[in-house]
Amino acid sequence: MNAARVTVPVRIVGTGLLGTSIGLALRDLGVDVSLANRSPASLRLAVDYGAGRAATPDDRPGLVIVAVAPDVTADLVAAELEAHPDALVTDVASVKAGILADLTARGADVSRYLGSHPMAGRERGGAIAARADIFLGRPWVIAPHAQSTTDQVRLLEDLALDLGSTPVRLAPDEHDRGVALISHVPQVVSSLLAARLIGASDAVPALAGQGLRDTTRIAASDPELWIQILGANAGPVAEVLAAFRDDLDGVISALQDPAAPGAPTRLAGMLTRGNQGVARIPGKHGGDDRFATLVVKVADEPGELARLLTEIGEEGVNMEDLRLEHSPGAPVGFAEIAVLPGVAHTLAEALTARGWSLAETAR
Amino acid sequence: MNAARVTVPVRIVGTGLLGTSIGLALRDLGVDVSLANRSPASLRLAVDYGAGRAATPDDRPGLVIVAVAPDVTADLVAAELEAHPDALVTDVASVKAGILADLTARGADVSRYLGSHPMAGRERGGAIAARADIFLGRPWVIAPHAQSTTDQVRLLEDLALDLGSTPVRLAPDEHDRGVALISHVPQVVSSLLAARLIGASDAVPALAGQGLRDTTRIAASDPELWIQILGANAGPVAEVLAAFRDDLDGVISALQDPAAPGAPTRLAGMLTRGNQGVARIPGKHGGDDRFATLVVKVADEPGELARLLTEIGEEGVNMEDLRLEHSPGAPVGFAEIAVLPGVAHTLAEALTARGWSLAETAR
Repeated sequence: MNAARVTVPVRIVGTGLLGTSIGLALRDLGVDVSLANRSPASLRLAVDYGAGRAATPDDRPGLVIVAVAPDVTADLVAAELEAHPDALVTDVASVKAGILADLTARGADVSRYLGSHPMAGRERGGAIAARADIFLGRPWVIAPHAQSTTDQVRLLEDLALDLGSTPVRLAPDEHDRGVALISHVPQVVSSLLAARLIGASDAVPALAGQGLRDTTRIAASDPELWIQILGANAGPVAEVLAAFRDDLDGVISALQDPAAPGAPTRLAGMLTRGNQGVARIPGKHGGDDRFATLVVKVADEPGELARLLTEIGEEGVNMEDLRLEHSPGAPVGFAEIAVLPGVAHTLAEALTARGWSLAETAR
Repeated sequence: MNAARVTVPVRIVGTGLLGTSIGLALRDLGVDVSLANRSPASLRLAVDYGAGRAATPDDRPGLVIVAVAPDVTADLVAAELEAHPDALVTDVASVKAGILADLTARGADVSRYLGSHPMAGRERGGAIAARADIFLGRPWVIAPHAQSTTDQVRLLEDLALDLGSTPVRLAPDEHDRGVALISHVPQVVSSLLAARLIGASDAVPALAGQGLRDTTRIAASDPELWIQILGANAGPVAEVLAAFRDDLDGVISALQDPAAPGAPTRLAGMLTRGNQGVARIPGKHGGDDRFATLVVKVADEPGELARLLTEIGEEGVNMEDLRLEHSPGAPVGFAEIAVLPGVAHTLAEALTARGWSLAETAR
């Protein structure tokens, strides 16, 4: 058992996916976790799962984590601030400035409230879907305000580190503008793009390639959840969308007269700025050149992909990423294997010598 | 060696990725393929590669395939129509109505021109990247016009079938509107979305999750290529973008006053229409429920993923799709395994019994 950085008793209010997952992870580290939930059945489930013990009136938590739906978060944070006058109270809602403003407006003691946002989740919700490891390697935003102290920030950073997350400090409004940009606006844009397919003749969606599939994947998200999220962060989302629309207007007018002087330059500028923007996303899919991709043809039979990966292991090469593409009805698929550029050429030769057919050696 | 459906001699003009790939595939089937290219060096490369023989003045092709850049396609189609008065001439350019209009305007014999568009490609170009199998399972659009005959359409359908493609008949303007919708507009939207990241503070792009990565992946595309494509299909792209902008305006105004009556309904409508649109995309990533996904935690060590896949094979289960997600710096990754729903539960139990840790059993 690892020693936890968090040493105070922790109270978790709300035993859905996030609350239960936090409880499971903290219990693994031996932290005293008490759980509260309006529904006794849900509470019992989380307790049975091992996420903590049921809260009692005698609990004296040092840290309260409110993990409920965004629209009731401020109410419950205010109640916890009153009920536990010695505790730091945080929440995990995906929008931060509105909750702080709400608490301030109702005269809550915000000197003991410090909002946070673990950037983790699952498409399934509820305690059943909870896992101690969902925070692993994900950012955990901590949003200090004017009255926040260094010790409070440290306590939440310790919580994030205990759960395997990377703590990131952002002011509440900076956080909200950030998630508008990296999460809420992409959702709107993807939904609007996918909606264009509704009126298409039947043959057209069948022409779709990976580009359309990738850009519209999140258009399948749950509308009820997203109405709440967009409503809670409406200002920052509208601001980014308005800037997006201005750029879009420029592209539309360039396309309406593509032979006009300056039109190709405008299109080139849009495309180049797209290149620059995507290059800012860190990591393996961020359009950087850290990895080389090998594409290997794999017969659509059990065991074939395993054989390929075993042989890659035998060559002493560690895959950085792997994706299988499989054309509907085709007897073969393609395994896209990302490796460090230094080993790509040698691996390609080794696989070819072993009889594999490589479809492509760069992307 | 399989018997080819195409029995006439085929002449391919242009030995880049597509021309060379078509040649390789037809030569595999024993078809007589003659190759032409302005550059003798490129021609020699394609001949050495096995894509066909160098063309001679005595050739009497029954089918000419013009596979050159979009902006010179009409010129070369017109020249081939004159040089080979008994041949059907086709092209493989990604936009169709403009080429037909150009040929008609210059008085070419369009009764022997039938445009087509194999929806295949690679991010690398050139003969070196050519593969006989790049058309496998991909749609091949054939774009008949008023003077096209059934026999001509059949010949191109035979070509598509010989290469493992699925022939799809679409009128030239229907094709151009279709590719605007499924390829060109997603490119513009992805570029514009990624461009919004340029002004973000450094901490923000680091918060990116899979949604942003997916929606902006194609923003890394080559600007020079895309200026040409967008310019050649400017009208249909502008039309779809204008409809997209109208929808966007509705969302922005709903977000500017999210408490106004009707605003949540408008957001809900946008999200629901996104659900409906993405559901129209066929196949594994199209938001349908044909497959269940298991997410298995895999240590980031050589051989671990191979071991997992070997064990899945031992359970007699065929994977439909596989994707590896790996958080930067994390000691583990997640293998997302798509299987038929009927076997998902049994496989999940079997893998758990074998000691694997499953992170999620549905999506």
